[in-house]
Amino acid sequence: MSRSRKRGRLVVVGGVAAGMSAAARARRMDRELEIVAFEKTGYVSYGSCGLPYLIAGIVKDAGDLIARTPEEFAKQGIEARTHHEVLSIDTANKTVTVRDLEQGRDLTVDYDRLVIATGGSAIRPPIPGADLEGVFVLRNVEDGIAVRDFIAHEEPRCAVIVGAGYIGVEAAEALVERGLETTLLSRPAQILGNFDPDIALVMQDELERNGVEVSVDDAAQSIEGDSTGRARAVESAKGQHETDLVLIGAGVRAESDLAKQAGIALGFKGAIAVDEKMRTNVPDVYAAGDCAETYHLLQKRPSYVPLGTTANKQGRVAGTNAAGGEAVFKGVVGTAITKAFQVGVSVTGLTLKAAELSGIPAKSVTIEHGTRAHYYPSPGRVHIKLVWEPEDGRLLGAQIAGPVQEAKRIDVFATALHHGLTIRDLQGLDLSYAPPFAPVWDPILVAANVAAKS
Amino acid sequence: MSRSRKRGRLVVVGGVAAGMSAAARARRMDRELEIVAFEKTGYVSYGSCGLPYLIAGIVKDAGDLIARTPEEFAKQGIEARTHHEVLSIDTANKTVTVRDLEQGRDLTVDYDRLVIATGGSAIRPPIPGADLEGVFVLRNVEDGIAVRDFIAHEEPRCAVIVGAGYIGVEAAEALVERGLETTLLSRPAQILGNFDPDIALVMQDELERNGVEVSVDDAAQSIEGDSTGRARAVESAKGQHETDLVLIGAGVRAESDLAKQAGIALGFKGAIAVDEKMRTNVPDVYAAGDCAETYHLLQKRPSYVPLGTTANKQGRVAGTNAAGGEAVFKGVVGTAITKAFQVGVSVTGLTLKAAELSGIPAKSVTIEHGTRAHYYPSPGRVHIKLVWEPEDGRLLGAQIAGPVQEAKRIDVFATALHHGLTIRDLQGLDLSYAPPFAPVWDPILVAANVAAKS
Repeated sequence: MSRSRKRGRLVVVGGVAAGMSAAARARRMDRELEIVAFEKTGYVSYGSCGLPYLIAGIVKDAGDLIARTPEEFAKQGIEARTHHEVLSIDTANKTVTVRDLEQGRDLTVDYDRLVIATGGSAIRPPIPGADLEGVFVLRNVEDGIAVRDFIAHEEPRCAVIVGAGYIGVEAAEALVERGLETTLLSRPAQILGNFDPDIALVMQDELERNGVEVSVDDAAQSIEGDSTGRARAVESAKGQHETDLVLIGAGVRAESDLAKQAGIALGFKGAIAVDEKMRTNVPDVYAAGDCAETYHLLQKRPSYVPLGTTANKQGRVAGTNAAGGEAVFKGVVGTAITKAFQVGVSVTGLTLKAAELSGIPAKSVTIEHGTRAHYYPSPGRVHIKLVWEPEDGRLLGAQIAGPVQEAKRIDVFATALHHGLTIRDLQGLDLSYAPPFAPVWDPILVAANVAAKS
Repeated sequence: MSRSRKRGRLVVVGGVAAGMSAAARARRMDRELEIVAFEKTGYVSYGSCGLPYLIAGIVKDAGDLIARTPEEFAKQGIEARTHHEVLSIDTANKTVTVRDLEQGRDLTVDYDRLVIATGGSAIRPPIPGADLEGVFVLRNVEDGIAVRDFIAHEEPRCAVIVGAGYIGVEAAEALVERGLETTLLSRPAQILGNFDPDIALVMQDELERNGVEVSVDDAAQSIEGDSTGRARAVESAKGQHETDLVLIGAGVRAESDLAKQAGIALGFKGAIAVDEKMRTNVPDVYAAGDCAETYHLLQKRPSYVPLGTTANKQGRVAGTNAAGGEAVFKGVVGTAITKAFQVGVSVTGLTLKAAELSGIPAKSVTIEHGTRAHYYPSPGRVHIKLVWEPEDGRLLGAQIAGPVQEAKRIDVFATALHHGLTIRDLQGLDLSYAPPFAPVWDPILVAANVAAKS
């Protein structure tokens, strides 16, 4: 692909959430632009957040995870090439070197604008045995298919999940649904490290009620294999856990090596440094998604929050700007949500723990309250924790645990955090009320009222 | 009850939502205060919003609607007297004249502070036959019991509901659940007049899908009775509807006659005029709930929005201030929500219709979008309508119609309206995402993105 061409060319490195959002958005901005996306796996435009549901069997076909296929992108005039890995970026000459993994040959492609959306990779903790057969991570579609097929063909009876973050908790539900005796190991003294312990405990109780053996304060130390090289047990600080399947959910790190080698500046936790237009420090090079840092509006500094919704927003902004438009992504307040079985948990802003770690003075309350009028059938009670600055009452964060869909109420707090609302502001919110939806005092208002008194 | 007493006395006129909130709050503020509440019906502290569910049979016992009984209030040192009607208020001498409806005698009670919480009364349109047997309104617990018992004893086959606001729609669901052939008459050309027509139509479709005969642009003109004085048919602009039961849901007007006769100033739509401390124009006299006006934060003027959640907030503020504390109720943004069958609808702020009536320049879009990741089981799609000022993009209002619980997403827009967010602000909101809760672009963000482009 040489430069002897009339139209400008946008090259996108990585074809998942951020990359394909950028490509689609750039196409809307500029009908003439040539747009090529290179993806090293066999799939573009998928939701990796859906992988636990592929394992659980809720998603029947891996293809269902795909939002748009390369054929569909082609109809929009976007060339999405799977099994193409970008090996290097030459920002001086504005070219990328790409390996066609199926044909085994390399090509050089020049670009006018570049969007790096290489995503994140699953962290594999350096424990002996992590490369044994039957040990998995859950990051791309191939990973999800591998776990699903392993369960179908090998009929494992039990599983150990190493790491109790979102993926660990979601995978625990999925494996139980598949009939596996499941153990969840958490190195910290609580699961879901992005939550305060009292809220995380609600989820831990729910996992245990559904048969998951949760072992906290218990780091995996090694994975033992049998004579065929297959994982058979996980040795942890507290003992030995026999297993037929090991799933490592130890978090995600930014896949930024390619950018680094090209001289592009990295920022927080090794993620690619970007400004609010998603520009890197190199002209005409943008970055978006799990490979890039994210500005945290409360901490007022870059952070690393690899989530699909942020990746899509960043991709959209990168694509707009790369196609000559004007868009900004101001940042996140740290909102996240997950469920397992009949419990949903959500968080936005700072936990009490995080505020204390950052040296921010903070008070907190946790309430438990009904979610419907007391005389109306209810899915159950909800826990809401508020964290705020004692001096001016400004909300710093909120967490919810309760019946699955109740966790979505967190969006009210997320909106409040974007605009600096105080506890007093929350008390006055005109939230919707009718018996099938809330008590006459919505739990959000109850939490604010209790906070105001404390 | 004479003035030869040591403690101050708070008298509360009306013992439902606002009145008993005020009493309870005053007790928390001041342990010594004498607190007496007079309620003319037989029940205090109930949720009139629950009455449709009493008819439907979801609430089994009328007593279940009661939040706290007079006995429970007594334990807090609050005297709640049912069947006591306040006949007059003498603000010069600071007394009220109260009729004990059971004993048939009047008493004079002096007060130091007075909270008027006389509520609203169901509007009975002046149509001939409205006083026939078998014609009901739905306002207090006795009304609900009367309808329920009429259905149980008289076994009506069919019903006509006059008026298609919240109560009309909720009653339609209830009557269908009870097996009645139900007709809903709406004088305007749409049901749910507080909504724009396109959103109201989603609810109308759901009612019709469930067998309700909805007749819009069709005013009731008279109710015909049989020889025993029982309602038998409703004559409307479009024809005659035979019926065994008529329910009038023609709205609520402020019950402010008592206050007016006492020389207390009335305001919007005849509701008692109050400031943000819920003070009337007379010293030491407060008003709260459906008898009082409500400041509308978007219209920047008093309005009349008789809803339980507002009544509770106003009561709380009135009680705090009446007991010597300091609290303010800044007002509402016009949030409301209801459901029938499998559809929920909600509104906050101004509809397009209301903006146009107020002469406020406004643009709008309505989107329809999925409510979960495309590969995750979903309760269905949701309609979201946004209304905003073209010049600065400031949100003016939002409406939602869709699967019941999805309507609760309106609270994000309500929060946004309290703080003047623009469409662009909405686009940047860090709302929670995981496949069981939302698509990667939450429908709220999709609506904002579409609005931004239009």
